[in-house]
This record gives sequence, C-alpha cells and structure tokens, in this order.
Amino acid sequence: MIGRFQPFHNGHLQVIRGVSRQQDEVIIAIGSANESHTPRNPFTAGERYHMIQASLEAGDIENYSIVPVPDINRYAVWVAHVESYCPPFNGVVTRNPLTATLFGERGYEINEPTPVKRSDYSGTEIRKRMADGDFWEDLVPPEVVDIIGVIDGVKRLQSITKTEKGAVDDQ
Amino acid sequence: MIGRFQPFHNGHLQVIRGVSRQQDEVIIAIGSANESHTPRNPFTAGERYHMIQASLEAGDIENYSIVPVPDINRYAVWVAHVESYCPPFNGVVTRNPLTATLFGERGYEINEPTPVKRSDYSGTEIRKRMADGDFWEDLVPPEVVDIIGVIDGVKRLQSITKTEKGAVDDQ
Amino acid sequence: MIGRFQPFHNGHLQVIRGVSRQQDEVIIAIGSANESHTPRNPFTAGERYHMIQASLEAGDIENYSIVPVPDINRYAVWVAHVESYCPPFNGVVTRNPLTATLFGERGYEINEPTPVKRSDYSGTEIRKRMADGDFWEDLVPPEVVDIIGVIDGVKRLQSITKTEKGAVDDQ
Amino acid sequence: MIGRFQPFHNGHLQVIRGVSRQQDEVIIAIGSANESHTPRNPFTAGERYHMIQASLEAGDIENYSIVPVPDINRYAVWVAHVESYCPPFNGVVTRNPLTATLFGERGYEINEPTPVKRSDYSGTEIRKRMADGDFWEDLVPPEVVDIIGVIDGVKRLQSITKTEKGAVDDQ
Amino acid sequence: MIGRFQPFHNGHLQVIRGVSRQQDEVIIAIGSANESHTPRNPFTAGERYHMIQASLEAGDIENYSIVPVPDINRYAVWVAHVESYCPPFNGVVTRNPLTATLFGERGYEINEPTPVKRSDYSGTEIRKRMADGDFWEDLVPPEVVDIIGVIDGVKRLQSITKTEKGAVDDQ
Amino acid sequence: MIGRFQPFHNGHLQVIRGVSRQQDEVIIAIGSANESHTPRNPFTAGERYHMIQASLEAGDIENYSIVPVPDINRYAVWVAHVESYCPPFNGVVTRNPLTATLFGERGYEINEPTPVKRSDYSGTEIRKRMADGDFWEDLVPPEVVDIIGVIDGVKRLQSITKTEKGAVDDQ
Repeated sequence: MIGRFQPFHNGHLQVIRGVSRQQDEVIIAIGSANESHTPRNPFTAGERYHMIQASLEAGDIENYSIVPVPDINRYAVWVAHVESYCPPFNGVVTRNPLTATLFGERGYEINEPTPVKRSDYSGTEIRKRMADGDFWEDLVPPEVVDIIGVIDGVKRLQSITKTEKGAVDDQ
Repeated sequence: MIGRFQPFHNGHLQVIRGVSRQQDEVIIAIGSANESHTPRNPFTAGERYHMIQASLEAGDIENYSIVPVPDINRYAVWVAHVESYCPPFNGVVTRNPLTATLFGERGYEINEPTPVKRSDYSGTEIRKRMADGDFWEDLVPPEVVDIIGVIDGVKRLQSITKTEKGAVDDQ
Repeated sequence: MIGRFQPFHNGHLQVIRGVSRQQDEVIIAIGSANESHTPRNPFTAGERYHMIQASLEAGDIENYSIVPVPDINRYAVWVAHVESYCPPFNGVVTRNPLTATLFGERGYEINEPTPVKRSDYSGTEIRKRMADGDFWEDLVPPEVVDIIGVIDGVKRLQSITKTEKGAVDDQ
Repeated sequence: MIGRFQPFHNGHLQVIRGVSRQQDEVIIAIGSANESHTPRNPFTAGERYHMIQASLEAGDIENYSIVPVPDINRYAVWVAHVESYCPPFNGVVTRNPLTATLFGERGYEINEPTPVKRSDYSGTEIRKRMADGDFWEDLVPPEVVDIIGVIDGVKRLQSITKTEKGAVDDQ
Repeated sequence: MIGRFQPFHNGHLQVIRGVSRQQDEVIIAIGSANESHTPRNPFTAGERYHMIQASLEAGDIENYSIVPVPDINRYAVWVAHVESYCPPFNGVVTRNPLTATLFGERGYEINEPTPVKRSDYSGTEIRKRMADGDFWEDLVPPEVVDIIGVIDGVKRLQSITKTEKGAVDDQ
Repeated sequence: MIGRFQPFHNGHLQVIRGVSRQQDEVIIAIGSANESHTPRNPFTAGERYHMIQASLEAGDIENYSIVPVPDINRYAVWVAHVESYCPPFNGVVTRNPLTATLFGERGYEINEPTPVKRSDYSGTEIRKRMADGDFWEDLVPPEVVDIIGVIDGVKRLQSITKTEKGAVDDQ
C-alpha cells in the first residue's frame, strides 16, 4: 500500500486492517519521504512512520512493514525505484489512477480499496482543518493526535500555510 | 530547434521541413527528456524520439539529428548544458522568448519560425483534447497516431489528468 | 538575515542598516542562490551579490558578510544547510513564518524587523512593475538601478514573464 | 543502529540482540538505501530490509523498526537527514568514528557495541568471499543465505566485481 | 548498443557495422552523457555524438539512431531509465558483465560482440596514449581525428590528467 | 581566485595579498562549498569563509569578496555556474590546469600565481599533518589556528581519516 500519510488517518487504518486480514503481510510505503514542512507534506517521514506504528500497535495489527520511499521525480523509473526500497510484494493497493497505471504496466495486480466515506477521511481535508483551526481530531487515531501534539504540528502547518499564501512580504 | 514535443505534431513537422531546406542539417533537441507521465509531459523521451523519427522518415526528411536533453533546472547554465549534449550548431529556431533571450545573450542567431495556425498546432491543445476524449488525430502525423496507439497513450494521459485534478482521495 | 533579494530594495537596505547598528556583524544570506531567469527569481546570485555590495558600500555600511545559499529542497535539513554555508551567527532576522519556525525549533533567537511600508518595499511589487513596464526605480537604491540597466534586467524579466504566461505556443 | 548491512551478518544480529534487551526499541537504519549493484553495495535496500526482517523474526526479536535511509552526500546535514527519516531516538550505536563524531556534536549519546570477532563478522570479508567463490554461508544467519540464493546474489556480485576490475574492455 | 565512446574508435565501428547488417536498426546509446572533462570521460555527449555520426556517415551505415543517456547513479532503476530515453529495442549488445546482468534480469536478449583485438581497440588505451603524447590516430576513424583536432582534445585530456595526478598544489 | 581552502593557509594569503595590490578587487570563490567532513574537504563552507575573513582582516586586506560555490559535477557547464554565483570578474588566478583550460576556452585571462614554496604551503600537506598528529600550525595564519581550535577540527579530521582507512569494521 502506497500513500503519503499526511497525516495517517482513520481511512488509512481501515484499509490496512482489511488488507492485513486478507494477506500474509502488508507493506506500507511512505511516499514523498524526503518532503516535510510544506502545506502538502507537513510531516517528516520519521513522524509519519511513528504515527503509523503507534496506531497499528494500538489496533493489534502485527503483520506489516513500513518503508519510507523518497521521491525520484522520474515516473518512467518509479516502479523500479519502489521495488528497490521494499521487500518483495505481489500486488498494489491504491486508489490513485497514475499509481495504478504505472504498476499495472509492469504486471502488478491492482486492488482498489473498498471506498470509505471520503469527505471525512482525506488528508487534504484534515490539513485544511488544521490550517483553519477547525476540529480535526476525530478523523485520525488517538495516537496520531498525541504525536502531532508533541511536535506542535498544528502550529507548524499554520506557519507554513501563512508563508505560502504570501500573507507576508517575500523579503 | 528546441521543443518538448508532447506530442510531435503537424506544426513541428512544418517548421522542421522549412529549416531542413534552408540549412545543411537540423538538430532537434527534445527538452525535458527526463520527464514523462505528467499532464504537461506525458510521453518519455524515447517515445518522442520514436514519433519524430517515424514522421520525418515518412516525410522524406533526412538531414536531421535528434538529441534528448534532460532538464538542468538552472537557467544560468542552460545554454552551456544544451551545447554539451548537441553536435555543434550555429543558430536556434524558437518561438519561446526565454529560450531566445538565453541563447541571444550567448551570441547565437535566433530564428523565429514563420507562424502556422497556432490554435490548431499546439501541444497544449492536443493534450487537452486527449484528456477530454475529443478528436486530436488530425493535428499530428499519422505515424504519431500509430505510436500513441501502441503505448495506449490517451489512456495514460487520462489517468494522469484524473490524478492531478484530485478527482480521488490523496490517500 | 535571510532573503532572496529579487531585487535588493530600499526595505532591505533599511533593515540591514538597523541591524548593522545593533550587532557586531550582519550576515546576509542570499537564498535560492541556484535560481535565476524565472519570474520569481529573475537575477542570478552573482547579480544579487553585486547589488547588495554596491548599495551597502554607497550607504557606508561595513560590518557585513554576503553568503549565497543554494536551495536544498528539504526543509527538514534546511537549518543545518544554512549553518554549513555561513560563518557562525546567533540570531535570525526574518519576517517569514516558516523560516522563523524552522530556526526557532533549533534554538535560534528570531527577530522580526520593524515593519516598513510594505506595499512599496516588496520584491513582488517591484518585479510586477518591471514586467508591466511601470516605474520601479524609486523603490531600490540607485546602485541597483545601474546594475539592472547594465544586464538589461527589465527586458529579461519581460521575456520570462511572457514565456510563463503561455503567450506563445509551447512548441 | 546505523549500518549498510551489505549483507546482514551474524555480527549485526549479535549487536541488535544485545541492544534489544537493554532498550525499549531498536531502530535499524539501512544506510546508502539508494545504492545497489556496486561492489561495496551489492544489495538493494529492499533486499536488505528483507534479510534483516527474516533474521530477526527467526531470532525472536520483536521490538525493532527498520528504516531505509538514502545517502544525502552532505555530512553537514546528515544528522538532520537521519532524524527526518526515523521515529524519535535517544542514542546511537555505532563503531564508525565519523558517525560517532557527527551525532556526538549534535548531543546524542554514542554507544560502541561490545566487540565481536571482527575478522569473521565483516561485510567486507563476506563480499570478498562471495566474489572469490569462497565459503561465506557460516557468517550470516540462514535466512540471509536463502534470500541471497533466491536473488542469485553471488552471481550478481561476481558480475559487478568483474566489471569494476576492468577485466573487460570499457567499450 | 551501449557505450561511453570516449572516444569512438575502430572497435566500436566494427561492432556497429556487424549489428547494422543483422538488424533493422541499431540504437547507439551514449552512456554518461552528463560527463565531460574528466580523465575517464574527456569528451562531451555532443562531441561524441558528432564523432559517431561523422564516422558512420563516412562508413555508409544508415540504419542507426544515436541517443545520449545521462547517468542516473541508481543501478536498481537503470534499465527503466535507459528504456525511457530510447526508441523501443529488443536486444542489447554489450561486453560489460554488469550491463548484461541488469538487462538480462529484465528479460532482454544479450549479445556479446565478436571479440576484436582488444589491446588495440580500447578507450582506456587511446586515452592513455593521448595523455602520454603517443600515437593514437590509427585506432580511430579519420573523422574522429579531425573532430578531436578541432576541439583541441588532446591538450584538454593532458590538462585534466595533470590535474588529477596532483602534479600541482591543490590550492 | 578559486580554491577549496581546506584549510586557508599562508600560501593562499600570500597570493591574495599580491592580487589585491594589482587589482581593484579580488573575488575569492570557495569551491566544493557543499562538501565537509571528508578527508579531502574536512571544513564546511561557513568555517572556511570564517577563516578567510578573519585572516584577511588581520592582514589589513579590504578589497575582497568571498563567494561559496557548490559543486555542479558537470565540467561542461562549470564556468557558467561560477559566473552565476559571483559578481562580475575579468580574470582568473589559478594554478590548476583544468580550471585554466575551462576558463581559457571561455575567453578569460588566466594568471598563474608566482610560485611559493609548495611543499610547505599545501592543503594536502596540512591535512596530512593534522591526521598524523604532527605540527601544522606554522603553515596557516594564527586566526585559522584559533578557528580550527574552537571547532575541534583536528579531532574531526582524525575521525574522518580513521573511517576512510577502514580501521574499523564497515558494520
């Protein structure tokens, strides 16, 4: 399963729980592992690793591996790049059409996860609520709330968003 | 002549035909050679090389060389970068003002190609038609239609565009 | 003090004059030193270095160092990156919330410069005026006007802006 | 614990077993995760991940996380880079003096592992034996022997070594 | 056929002539296209393109394409990288064991060229003779002699070699 | 003047003093600015900037600018790269044959500095003495001794050298 997990939320947890029951093992690839402190990727790969691990442990899921994968910015070689970071795998769980196309062209089985209520379980929505100071805590596992609290993540996201919006002089 | 050729179309063919009659040889530099599978750059450098070669061969044009040139993302060194990938050349054919400025500052002669009907012969227009499922085949040489068919290029572009538009959860 | 200085303007000069009186030395870090010839970063690091140096010399400010710093595109390591390019420093002068957050997390003292009239002294505003052919010369020190004249900088910015706006075929 | 694990061997296993008894959790960072198919780094990060995971599982060690970390080739920012890929950690286990210096300068506690018989448990020695066709299998856990067998790793290493030695024309 | 062609020599020409008779088309990939001005890679991709083109034209070989391919420094994705730069191909001509291993693992047919007298036709040997001021001109096609003369290539190689040997202070 | 200044030594100081008397201004480009903590490049660009600045100030030299320049690893574009980081300049002071060749080909005047006693004033020699624990302090200005003392630079170099020599297991 490939995602950016910005942040890890209840929708991710539900999909992983489902796959973990059907498969021997789930490999969770953290995409854009090199990115952090941007509006689209506020958290580091290590922080996301921590969120996933803590949530799965609390959820009694054990048959998983977590693999941070940095961007390579060359879609033509991206499948080979992901393969080189992960233990061997047979299929890919994704709802992203480009990911499905790229892995499909290389012969992998593509599984689209059963849809969950999307409007609620979306990284974009959660980041928007954080930036706007709205309530987001019910969309993620409690372990994620704790970790984001410790790193003062909401304030970080708000600083980044202000910068991007050009609310300040560009010096 | 420098372009991205996403895809190679009738406007490109017409310009190259003109230059090939006036000059000993035309060097066709495929820019952004490292890019593929994005809305703006859906085709790989190899696919574009193939399109150009097949079309020029069918058009009985022989005095040309094709040179894929990856991005360097440093405009200050871009002219030196292009020089290092290409056989020697004297002038540059471009309608792009930045390309003209950069090569002009380094002493190259700049030739703006005689305008063709732009609305029809534009990579942007062709990619838009492909993404929307409209008819695009009359804007490119028949060899390009064949090659895009073999690689299932229209479906690829539609997958990419859906991904970019955020039509799906960002996982 | 960290900035992009595209171009160096009267607001920058005023802040540096203030800091230079309170501190032993001001280190002026030119961010995005690898960038040039884009609408947001039209001038090279060398051109910006020249603008700053000429303006400070004319303004009788002597206790400063100029350090071009290329982008690293990894905010998680950005503070360590800036540290590795600069002589030792104690505090950071910035009005940018992300810069303040990143350096604050690493224990640096953050000083927000006394506000100057922003609408007038803004790189964005100056570049916009240049692109539109409006009068911008009163917003920068006279030395900057001279340097931009010598490199034909306004014409460069206008070429870049035309390219970005898609005013021409994308070839 | 930071290493390249080319391949994972009995010395690594012994150190991890020791640390796993003293600490709540061991984070195993796979360095040079971007490298493979070279004499010094023959195996991909995914292959190394697989070796470690299989060996620890067979050894009944459970309190660990594995984190592939690509090279950044900037020692000045390397500690911040490793921090950004890993869940939070307090100390570093390493016998490498540079790693110890860099993490020590940033305030981390450094633990040098109790020495094991070095001549036997060394990645360099194992790769040398593989390249020379000598017996290496007793220096690694049996799971590693299996994985290297499946990927035909000894033959890969021998191909690479021949190439490096210039045993062939450089074309 | 993949090579670095530093410089293009009679051995290369002989192999290409053979392949061009057996196949519809030969794709000549210029590896390390990003490299130049080093002892191992003295000539730019453009200079090498020029040498190949001039020599094949003089040799009445017509069914070929030349494709400069920059290094990606990630062997795990190298085959996908080469595929993305080249028009479609079926087999690989190489004497390099690593290239053979990597393309073989991805299902390509590998052809080892009939051996020519190696001591004479080797890039390493030719560069050594140039550096030492010995006679090298009989090992390459006459067109290559001309091109290297125009760019003053022997002097360039000698400058580079002196620098590498540390014959001078490292400043 | 281009150098790596690892570290700044009396030979550098003597050359700069000479040039500063003949020219209006000396631009001192710190090459390999991105490198640090390696046997060849132990000090960061910022530490080297500090050494140069402190030594020239003590030596009453004022007409200079210091410009850190990161590596671009593409000699074909290196001159354009250096130009883009530096204020305008007319000539280049170097004893390095490759630097002389590259800038000479682009039309710059090359000045070889009057030779000083090389065996004594060489970065290689100084780093060797530091690594071996020998006396090196008389080969550099006293300000450099102080700065290297504050950052514990000799110990750093010794750690790096031990690591490189493989005096320890490669883990």
